[in-house]
Amino acid sequence: MKTAPPSVEALIDLMARLPGLGPRSARRAVLHLIRKRALQLQPLADAMADVAATARECLNCGNIATSDLCPICENEERADGTICVVEDVADLWAMERTGGFKGRYHVLGGTLSALDAVGPEDLRLPQLADRVTSEEVREVILALNATVDGQTTAHYIAEMLEGRVSVTSLAQGVPIGGELDYLDDGTISAALRARKAL
Amino acid sequence: MKTAPPSVEALIDLMARLPGLGPRSARRAVLHLIRKRALQLQPLADAMADVAATARECLNCGNIATSDLCPICENEERADGTICVVEDVADLWAMERTGGFKGRYHVLGGTLSALDAVGPEDLRLPQLADRVTSEEVREVILALNATVDGQTTAHYIAEMLEGRVSVTSLAQGVPIGGELDYLDDGTISAALRARKAL
Ligand SMILES: [Zn+2]
Ligand SMILES: [Zn+2]
Repeated sequence: MKTAPPSVEALIDLMARLPGLGPRSARRAVLHLIRKRALQLQPLADAMADVAATARECLNCGNIATSDLCPICENEERADGTICVVEDVADLWAMERTGGFKGRYHVLGGTLSALDAVGPEDLRLPQLADRVTSEEVREVILALNATVDGQTTAHYIAEMLEGRVSVTSLAQGVPIGGELDYLDDGTISAALRARKAL
Repeated sequence: MKTAPPSVEALIDLMARLPGLGPRSARRAVLHLIRKRALQLQPLADAMADVAATARECLNCGNIATSDLCPICENEERADGTICVVEDVADLWAMERTGGFKGRYHVLGGTLSALDAVGPEDLRLPQLADRVTSEEVREVILALNATVDGQTTAHYIAEMLEGRVSVTSLAQGVPIGGELDYLDDGTISAALRARKAL
């Protein structure tokens, strides 16, 4: 026996699977949306259907795009000879929020991991090597999480690109074990300014 | 200059307006949904469109319904001669979660308020009086928030129904100024069991 109609319960169940929402806050969000069904629920349904139909990976950098290239790769002003390498799109967005980086990105899609059997061929590493040549890059900035796997990946990239381009990494303002996406913007900005050669 | 495509930014803006999600958690939720766009984003879009098209108020009690009557009013077993009066649907759902009440509900749609100029005609009070007769009710249980306006409304209902039906209210296990929807289920259950005549 359910409290709400089955379609409403189904919506609550789907909402409760979102990160940051539990079952109770999902109920509250759905009630809110039903009260504002013309102004918020229908537009949200339309926006989700739109994104579900069009979202994909940028062919160049791995950011989220709705065409072959993401807004950053489409912007010629971002071709300033630097590429910032991040693990995932959330980290790209965290870097971008600081407003401190004016170049382009490269999303690896993870880190090397012996434990999880992730090798170089599972990440977008060959594409990074290609871009260093094709986009006339002079500096690759590694903005990887300060975890063991993140640092292993950083050293792998530094060796892969040795002699071809300057490879730097965010300064140790990033706390050990810290995840970029959870840091405040100021910490990320400071670490970017104090980046050092590997 | 945006980080993500306009349609994705639009989705993030709409998600950030949900209670319980800020701008950063909205970004994280949207990224999560894009990663799972086949399994979660499209189903969520469909569920929202479905609810937006069908959700309305139960004609009898004011709960959310997708037909004239909500699941509780459609269920004859819930016609046990008691009606629990709540301010809004969130409170109905909070009561229902406790599993301690087996009768039907009546959603007022707010409380009397001199400050906000809410009078009896602005709430579903005439409908409550009608239901006491038509549904052969013997007890009306007031589960209103322990606020000044909630208690004013409780006394108004007690006077309106005086001599016609027994009117009780949740025991003072509900903290002063407390909102039902934020209480733990145990507190609500205990207050229901210890309800007293007004
Ligand atoms: Zn791109
Ligand atoms: Zn109903």
